[in-house]
Formats: sequence, C-alpha cells, structure tokens
Amino acid sequence: MITRDFDIRVRYKETDAMGVVHHSNYAVYYEQARTEFLRSFGATYRELEQRGVMLPVSEVTMKFYKPARYDDMITVRITLPELPAVRLVFDHEVYNAQGELLNTGRVVLAYIDATTRRPCRAPADHIDLFREWF
Amino acid sequence: MITRDFDIRVRYKETDAMGVVHHSNYAVYYEQARTEFLRSFGATYRELEQRGVMLPVSEVTMKFYKPARYDDMITVRITLPELPAVRLVFDHEVYNAQGELLNTGRVVLAYIDATTRRPCRAPADHIDLFREWF
Amino acid sequence: MITRDFDIRVRYKETDAMGVVHHSNYAVYYEQARTEFLRSFGATYRELEQRGVMLPVSEVTMKFYKPARYDDMITVRITLPELPAVRLVFDHEVYNAQGELLNTGRVVLAYIDATTRRPCRAPADHIDLFREWF
Amino acid sequence: MITRDFDIRVRYKETDAMGVVHHSNYAVYYEQARTEFLRSFGATYRELEQRGVMLPVSEVTMKFYKPARYDDMITVRITLPELPAVRLVFDHEVYNAQGELLNTGRVVLAYIDATTRRPCRAPADHIDLFREWF
Repeated sequence: MITRDFDIRVRYKETDAMGVVHHSNYAVYYEQARTEFLRSFGATYRELEQRGVMLPVSEVTMKFYKPARYDDMITVRITLPELPAVRLVFDHEVYNAQGELLNTGRVVLAYIDATTRRPCRAPADHIDLFREWF
Repeated sequence: MITRDFDIRVRYKETDAMGVVHHSNYAVYYEQARTEFLRSFGATYRELEQRGVMLPVSEVTMKFYKPARYDDMITVRITLPELPAVRLVFDHEVYNAQGELLNTGRVVLAYIDATTRRPCRAPADHIDLFREWF
Repeated sequence: MITRDFDIRVRYKETDAMGVVHHSNYAVYYEQARTEFLRSFGATYRELEQRGVMLPVSEVTMKFYKPARYDDMITVRITLPELPAVRLVFDHEVYNAQGELLNTGRVVLAYIDATTRRPCRAPADHIDLFREWF
Repeated sequence: MITRDFDIRVRYKETDAMGVVHHSNYAVYYEQARTEFLRSFGATYRELEQRGVMLPVSEVTMKFYKPARYDDMITVRITLPELPAVRLVFDHEVYNAQGELLNTGRVVLAYIDATTRRPCRAPADHIDLFREWF
C-alpha cells in the first residue's frame, strides 16, 4: 500500500449555485492527483500514451460527506491498494484545511492497448515502479 | 419503479484527448436527465430550492463499458427504483444511437433543510408526485 | 448574412457560487449552437475532421449584460456575417425566455490542414453550402 | 502597471478531441491566476463577497496562437494595466515551458453592490492595495 497527499486550490468555476464544489469536479480532482501520484514515481499518463497504452476509467465510486467552497485548499490523499496488473486501482480521500473528511472515492482504470483497443497488462517496467511497496 | 429516456447531444467541450467523452461528464449528463425526469412529473430542483429544500448528491457509482464521441446523440435512461423519503435514488443507463450500453450509474441525493443544513424528509406533496407508480 | 436560433437549457453544473451561469460556459454554448448551425446547412465539424480539416478557435470576444440561472431556457442567435474563406466568423447573441439580451460574442475559427497544421482554405463544397445567402 | 506570473498544470479533463486544451478553459485559467494575483496583494474575491461586493466578468477577449497539451506546465502572466475604480481590468498572456506565447486575453470585471446588484466603486482600502504601483 502506498499513500501520498496532493493539494488543490478550489477554483470559482468549480462551485455551483449551492455555493459549494459541484460533485462532478471531484472526479477531476482525483484525476489530477493521480497524475501527480504517478509522476512522483517517475511514471506519467503521457508517457504511457506515447508507448501505446491507454488508461481509461472503468469504475468510479464517490461518497460525499461535507462540501468544499471557493478558494478552499483541499488535500487529496491517494492510496494505491494493490500492485497494478491489468487494472490500476486508486482510493482517494479529500480533506479540507481543518482536516475534515469531505469525500472518498475509488477509481479503477484499465490498461488498454491503443492499437487493438483491448485490455492488456501494464508494461513490466511500469509495474516495477511500485513493486518495492507491496 | 419508473423509467424515462432523455436524449443529449455530446458537445466538443466534453471530449478529451482520447477522442471520447471524459468520464466526469457522465455525472453531469445524469444530472441533466434527472432535471428533465423531475420536470416530467411536475417537480423541479429550482422549486425545491425555493421551498428551502436542497438536494445535494451523497453517492455516485459509475461503470464504463464503451465510450461516446463528439456529436453522438446519447440516451440517458433513468429509473427511480424506490419512492423518495429522506433520500432520492436514481439509476442511469446511457446508450448510444446504435443501442449499445455505454455506462451505468447510480446517484443518491439527500433531502437537506436549507436553513439547518440537516437531512430532512422530502415534502409530502413532492413524494405524492411519484406515489401512484409504487 | 444568415441568422438562426438554437435553444439550450442551463445545467446546474454550469452555475457558480454567484448563483448564475459562469462566464466561461458561454463559449461552450456558442460552440454547441455553431454545431447545430452547421448541421442545419448539411455540414458538420465531425465530417470536416474526417476530411482532414480542423477548425480551431482563433479569437473569442464576449460581452456580458445580464446573467442566466439554473434551468433557464436560453436562445443562442447565431449570425454568419460573411462567406467562409480561410476563416469562419460567427456572431452570437444570447437571450433569456423573456427576450432580454444576456450577452453577445464573436468567435473566429481558422481552417487548418490536419496534416501540415497550417492554415488552409475551406473546402469548396463546404463554402458552397452558404453561398446562396451572400 | 503591475505584472505577476502564475503556473498552472494542464489537466486531462481540460483537453479535447483535438488533443489540445479546449479554448474555453483559458477563461478559467485566467480566473485562477487573478485569484492568486489578488491574494499576492492581500485581497481575495471571497473577502470582497463577504463585504457585499461582487466582481462579475463584463468582458472577455481572447486570441489564440498555439495550443497547450495535457500535463503541460503553463504560465499565466497577469498585468493590471490601470488602478481599479468602478471596473477591474486584467491582461493575461499564457506561455508554455518553452517560453512560447500560446494566447493573450483581456478580462474586465465590474464592481457590483451585492444588495442592489448595481455597479459601485471598489472599496477604498481595496484600491489602496494597488495604489503605490501607479
């Protein structure tokens, strides 16, 4: 299991008429944090795409407890619960600056061969980036 | 159980660099379809808000099978699986014009008193709009 | 000069904490209306892309007079002020259901060869779609 | 005249099927940079809102020269060309990591009294934050 924290500042555009962050934006925050998580291990979506591997989202589950508001600095805590194989699973917890848990989410991504558009195994050297933690 | 279909045309803005609709947009399509679903029963979010009742999203679950692309006409099939009480549950299935199932999603909304910001029961006349179907 | 009207229903996601539509969304509404405008003449962005012609936005000018709110039905009135050549110019006026002018915008798109990524002339048969109006 | 630079990392969600950042997102990047610009002078939108002053956008002009792509680190250079009075004008230039100019934009915001919804002067102490630079 690996856990990392990433901070994101809430934009005005991300609020809605209830005065809080619209729920759909958390899927975007999760994705931004995943990008930074992968980067911190020397991996990038962009490099995977250039190697012909796509990582589309296959499942999203989100539970909402408290809202975030404009200009809040929120922390996305990402956990990689298992070593990647044919899928890549991320758990996310979002906290506000007071340490309150705002929401939790699990996102499952599938490794897809960009040519055949079929599921494939993650590249071996990509898996190796995370191996020492499991 | 009540089921209704609503059509949505995919906007260019909703695609991403994979050439398909970004997964976070489905939460927005579901919401748009819910608005039309409620309107078809004579209820509106807007009117609920004016009566001091908010309906924030408390849970979202989405599973993705196939992508949609720019300018696709997609159909969101909404099912109300239970009579509203303290929560409002919607199931969504999204189809493309060829009738292929693109994704499914469940969204749970909570009735909240706008003054106290605490959970409340749905207004009785709001529940009555759906009663004959259950 | 050609003018056409297209209706769009404001989504909850498009509002912000001021309770009104966030200004950036009008660029998206304009784009959606342009898609429908072109379709009404038998042209589509998608078909242009398949023929190797891209139409990126090169300029946007927007002036805002009044806000739109959640669930408003707004009308985007599009005018094509000149026959397309190396660029495609659209003027947009947005009205609410009371006929009040909410904002105006001009968007200039450039025809780009998808292979060379350089400016090109619009395909002749694409220009011909609009010729009788000028 | 005051100039400040702010960095933003492009999110996957912000790309479109052309493989580049959708033009409407630049209005959001500009806004995020304005928030940070104001914060660097000890002012915040949030605090203005709490004092009953709103700052809706009244005009946006954007010109696009080159695209940004997923995961690019872009720099928004903001210039405040004049001391705020009844309006607040910002000029924006966006550069990529190679120092290439991607686009430029001017945004004009209006100070609005939240109670009367009419134009008003900026609060005197708000103007004073910028006075020494003009």
